[in-house]
Formats: sequence, C-alpha cells, structure tokens
Amino acid sequence: MLGNFSYHNPTKLYFGEDSLNYLMDELKNYGENVLLVYGGGSIKKNGLYDEIIAILKDCRKTVAEVPGVMPNPTVEKLNEGVAIARENGSQFILAVGGGSVCDYSKAVSVSVHCDDDPWQKYFIRFEEPACEIVPVGCVLTMTGTGSEMNGGSVITNHETKQKIGHVFGDNVMPKFSILNPRYTMTLPKYQMIAGIYDIFNHICEQYFSGEDDNTSDYISEGLMRGLIHSSRIAVEDPQNYEARSNIMWTATWALNTLVSRGKTTDWMVHMLGQSVGAYTDATHGMTLAAVSLPYYRYIMPYGMKKFARFATEVWGISAEGKTDEQLANEGLNAMEAWMKDIGLVMNLTDLGAADDMIEGIADGTFILEGGYKVLARDEVIQVLKASMG
Amino acid sequence: MLGNFSYHNPTKLYFGEDSLNYLMDELKNYGENVLLVYGGGSIKKNGLYDEIIAILKDCRKTVAEVPGVMPNPTVEKLNEGVAIARENGSQFILAVGGGSVCDYSKAVSVSVHCDDDPWQKYFIRFEEPACEIVPVGCVLTMTGTGSEMNGGSVITNHETKQKIGHVFGDNVMPKFSILNPRYTMTLPKYQMIAGIYDIFNHICEQYFSGEDDNTSDYISEGLMRGLIHSSRIAVEDPQNYEARSNIMWTATWALNTLVSRGKTTDWMVHMLGQSVGAYTDATHGMTLAAVSLPYYRYIMPYGMKKFARFATEVWGISAEGKTDEQLANEGLNAMEAWMKDIGLVMNLTDLGAADDMIEGIADGTFILEGGYKVLARDEVIQVLKASMG
Repeated sequence: MLGNFSYHNPTKLYFGEDSLNYLMDELKNYGENVLLVYGGGSIKKNGLYDEIIAILKDCRKTVAEVPGVMPNPTVEKLNEGVAIARENGSQFILAVGGGSVCDYSKAVSVSVHCDDDPWQKYFIRFEEPACEIVPVGCVLTMTGTGSEMNGGSVITNHETKQKIGHVFGDNVMPKFSILNPRYTMTLPKYQMIAGIYDIFNHICEQYFSGEDDNTSDYISEGLMRGLIHSSRIAVEDPQNYEARSNIMWTATWALNTLVSRGKTTDWMVHMLGQSVGAYTDATHGMTLAAVSLPYYRYIMPYGMKKFARFATEVWGISAEGKTDEQLANEGLNAMEAWMKDIGLVMNLTDLGAADDMIEGIADGTFILEGGYKVLARDEVIQVLKASMG
Repeated sequence: MLGNFSYHNPTKLYFGEDSLNYLMDELKNYGENVLLVYGGGSIKKNGLYDEIIAILKDCRKTVAEVPGVMPNPTVEKLNEGVAIARENGSQFILAVGGGSVCDYSKAVSVSVHCDDDPWQKYFIRFEEPACEIVPVGCVLTMTGTGSEMNGGSVITNHETKQKIGHVFGDNVMPKFSILNPRYTMTLPKYQMIAGIYDIFNHICEQYFSGEDDNTSDYISEGLMRGLIHSSRIAVEDPQNYEARSNIMWTATWALNTLVSRGKTTDWMVHMLGQSVGAYTDATHGMTLAAVSLPYYRYIMPYGMKKFARFATEVWGISAEGKTDEQLANEGLNAMEAWMKDIGLVMNLTDLGAADDMIEGIADGTFILEGGYKVLARDEVIQVLKASMG
C-alpha cells in the first residue's frame, strides 16, 4: 500500500428482504417535495411502485414523477428531469430502479440548482458541482453498477454519440440505499448475467494496475472468488436467494471506492464498452464482456506478474513448473471459460456492431492513464477489431 | 448472504505519509475547546505532540489535556477524563495514540453529558447513550484494534477484575481518523506482533461462524491472506513501509463491521482474552494468541466444514484425498506455525497467568452466543487449562 488517499463513504445501506421497512424512517429526514424517478414501469407490474407510493403518502410527501428513465439515460431525459424537479421544487429524489435510474438521479441532483448546462459542465468539462445538491435515496431493483454507494453517473448523448461517466464526490453519493435481493429476481436472465459481468469487470478494472503489494488486491481477489462461485449458482438457479444476495452485496463493494484505495486505474474496458454502448445501445455489461478478453490479452505483456497472480489467486491454477506468461495465459483462459459458461456475449458483432462503426467507436473511446499500457489509437482499433469475433 | 442488516460507517479516513495535513481542515468543523487525549508520552519524544499542538494553535483552539491513558484504560481514568472534559467545556476530543486511546476517548465522549455512572450504564448494563455525544477524531499511532473506524470501547475495572467492551453505534464512531503508517514504525516489535495477531483474530472471530455461503467470508479470506503475507515481511523488516501500511489498512477493515455483515458472532476468543487481560494486564493481542488455538481446536468439530475451508482458502492447503477433519487440523497447524514464526506468545503462563487464576478468569469470561458452540463453564476451564502451555 503506497501513496496517500482518503476514504469516506457515508451512504447508509439497508440490506435484505425486510429492507424497505426502513424507507419511512429515512424519508422523515428530508423535505416534503419528493421527485420519484423510475424506469420502464416494471415496478408498476410487480407492486413495488404501489408500496412506495403508500409509504410516501404515509409520510405526507408531495410526489412528482419522472418515469421512463431508459437503460442508457440520455441528455434529453436529464434535461426533462431537471425541469420537472424545478417546477415541483423537489427537495429529495427517490430513485427506484437499477444503476441507470440511480446514475440519472444523481445527474439530476447536481443540475436542479445549477445555472450552467449540465451536459457541458459535468460530462464534457468534468467540473464539480458548486450549487446546492438535492439529496438522493435509492431503492435498488437491479444489481451491477454499484451506483447505490458511489458518486458515479453515466449519461449518453446520442447526437454526438458520446456515453460519458463522471464520478462525483461523497456529497453526491446516495444518502441511503435499500438493497432487497428479491427485487432483482424478476429481472430477465440476460440482464442478470450482464450485471454479473459488470461487477466482475469493476473489480478487474481496479485490480489490473500496479505491481505493488496492496491490501486492495487481496480484497479484490476475495470478492472475485465469491462472485465466480455465486454466479455459477445463480445462472443454474436464478431464484437462489443466497447466490443473488451475495451478488448484490459484492456489486456494492466492487465499486464504492474501497478496492481502488492506494491504486491508479485507467478503466479502459469501460472506456471501450461505453463507446460501444453509444453506437449500439447494447446492455452495458455485455459491451464490457465483448471487449474484455481482446483488451486483457493485448495488455497482458505489460502486467505479466499481475496476470500470473490473477491465475493462481483468483482461479486457483497451480503455478508449479510454469512461467509467468504461461500462468497469465491460463488465467485469462479460465476467465474466458467462465464467461462462456455463464452465457455472456463474447463479441461485438453479436451486439449489433458492424465493421464500419469501428473508427467511430475508437473516436469515442477516452484513453486514460493509470493502467499497464496507455493505448495509442491504432491499438484501440486493433482491440476493437479483435472484439468483433 | 442471509438475513437483514444495515451498514453505515461515516468515519472519514485520511491515509498515508501526508495524512496529518488534513487535520487542520477537519478541526475547523468543530468547537473551540478541544480535549487532547494521549498515552504514555511517546508522542512527546517523537515530535508528534509538538506538531499537533502547533496545528491546534493555528486553528485557535483552546486545549485541555488528558495524558497517560494506559494500555488497558481503567474506569478511574475514564472518570478523570470526564471530569477534565466537563471543567473545560470540551467540544471535541482529539485522540492521539493507539486503540486504547481511541477506545478511551469514545468512552469519555458518551459520558461527558451523561448524568449516570458511565461504567454502570455502558459497561455493566450495556445501555446506549441518550445524551449529547462529544465528537471524536483520531490520529492513530498503533494499529490493531480497528478503533479508528468503529464504535467499540473497552474499559477495565481492576477492583472487580472486569475488562468489558461495548460496541456503540455509528453516532459514536470517530468523525475522522488520520492513519499514517510511519507513526506505527517506532513501536517496539513485541507490540507490532501483538497488533498483527489482534487484527488476524478480529477476522477469525467473524469468519468462524455460520456454514452459509456469505460474501463476508470471501472478503475475510482476502484480508487474512494479505495480512499473513505482510506480517512475514514486517517481522523480518519492521521498517518496510509497504508491509506496515498494508497491515494498518487491513486492521481498519478487519473491524469496522464490514466482514460481519450477514453473520452472527460470539467473539469468544476476545471474551477469554479480555478476562485474561483483567488478571494479568498482558498486552491484548498476546492474550488472544495464547488462548486461540486451544479454543479453536476445541470448537473445530462443531464447525468442521468452515475449518476445512479455512485450510484450503486461507492457507492454500490442497484438499486432495483428505477428509474435512484432516483439512481442518492441517489449517490450524498452519496457523500455529505462522503464529510461532512471527513470534507470538503461545501460552498463558508466559503472560504471567498462574493456575490459581483460572477459576477467576473463567468467572470473568462472558459467554456469548452466535458461534459454533456455546461453551459451558467447565469447557471454558478446559480451554483455559489447555492454554496454560
């Protein structure tokens, strides 16, 4: 563990089948005018919407709604939500949904009292909020993004074909999040699997940097081993509560800043995947799955020792009589076998990408530093071509 | 992961060689009258006292002091600190020291505005504070107890031969803690090793319960693997910053409630060790080391699968062709070998306990539920006798 860092994560979490019971107590801490944000309406079918409206009524809240937040929330939708919040004097935002709904709610929270254009300020210029921030609480119905306990927010601009994430500070993190694994169990299997890979990749993005000895890597290895184990159970039996609850809890800790402490990160799989997402509107986790192995195999020589460690410590591969390179390859092969086993989409063609998109996807890929290799544009193209399958 | 739980840990952490730079910013958030709490005076020798006094002066704070907090803080010392805080109208408590100083400061924080007798109220009747709580901040100079990011406080009553811990809620947790691994590097090796075992045992106490599949166990395994690795480096070379910093960070996460989420715990090694501490005044971590193996070998049959998992997942022992019982034994043997390697005290006799103390130590041992086996009094005696060496 080297370098200096701070850690502060004030989000209060309620976990388990009874966790919604705590919503009322939390709501009492905030103003009367609540903005209820949700997605495509599945919460109306499964009864959660009615439960939450009843709780809001019991708390004598005045409720305005932003329904229809889409999987990759757009800048137009952001502006719409900001307008509704302003019209209604919203003092609290209750996000009910998955990562996109949480992400979106945070983007609204920093924009309601901001005079500037939110897209330009937060997602193009990456500025921090200087205005009052409307507090956000979450009731999570999908798992994967970790948005329930971090300051992250990803917004898509279809006009400019940009999907950009901004990780805000602890003042933008949800005040509380309610995590009931049961809510995630009505999700289609495809979405569950995409979420599992999103979680796994969050850990990988933080793990594959640095050769130094770091407690964060040991925690990451524990989280990955647990996730691999639970994912196999959940894919066989999506109604297995124990597996689904472990996956939900792992997701939170995979991306709440803990496992990046003391490390540098480049988040290149996400940079590639997000650009793919802006072109194809494919499910986030699947875009990550499709580019991961070509990317990791490309950078492997630059982080050979860590990829060898990944093989032995995460996949339990015996090091006996092997070079680091052999081990590193075996580790990535084990990862590939697991990815296929759980049913991930393994190439971009299957996500609707075509060869003529590659240049554009490369243009939309932010190239960040902090990992084993800063990619040049032609290397991005090479990885994307290898990802076409 | 089963059951319902909440998680909220608002302590802000500053970690690294430059972490004291953040003290001034934090102090600005609190009142003028500061109670400075510290231990035996090593901070006066190494210059930290002068640095902190200078920062307090720069912030125009009025400072009252409670020096001389001992390794196992006593009820008399608690009462003394409460009186000084009251006389000086202390609005903030700055704890500079190890776990005992942090523990002690939390006990003072809940007692300054409490009309009742603190020992009776918090440590005998285990009541929660109903009064105003004076906020606490920590500058940590020893690592092990995790007190820097939890609500725990242990106080010793020599008259009644009781050493009792109360884990308070998040309102008692330090507001911030400053963790500079360099401060821990002047500590005598004996204290460093005792601290390492305290950390390891904190994880074990939470790990050895339940047979269910739980993310917490995977995180615990990662933390234990990392700690075993770093401890071997630190014992060889106590000035190795990387190892010392990993140990410090592991200590924080070993006991800030994370790895007990979704689990039950009985903390029996601590219950035994604390009672030994009340009789011998021996270093906390060493009392735990001396009773651990006799205790774990005694309860092993009741948690055989978990002890077998401990062998393969923490110690890397091959399961091939072995029964759970063989594995479980090999795991505890590996732990014993590691404990001897790093130089822990392996029996109570070496800590100054005598046979005629055993009955009294057993009387002072709280027997809690939540682990694999609720011990009867004669079983406590049996474990203590086996711990005499």
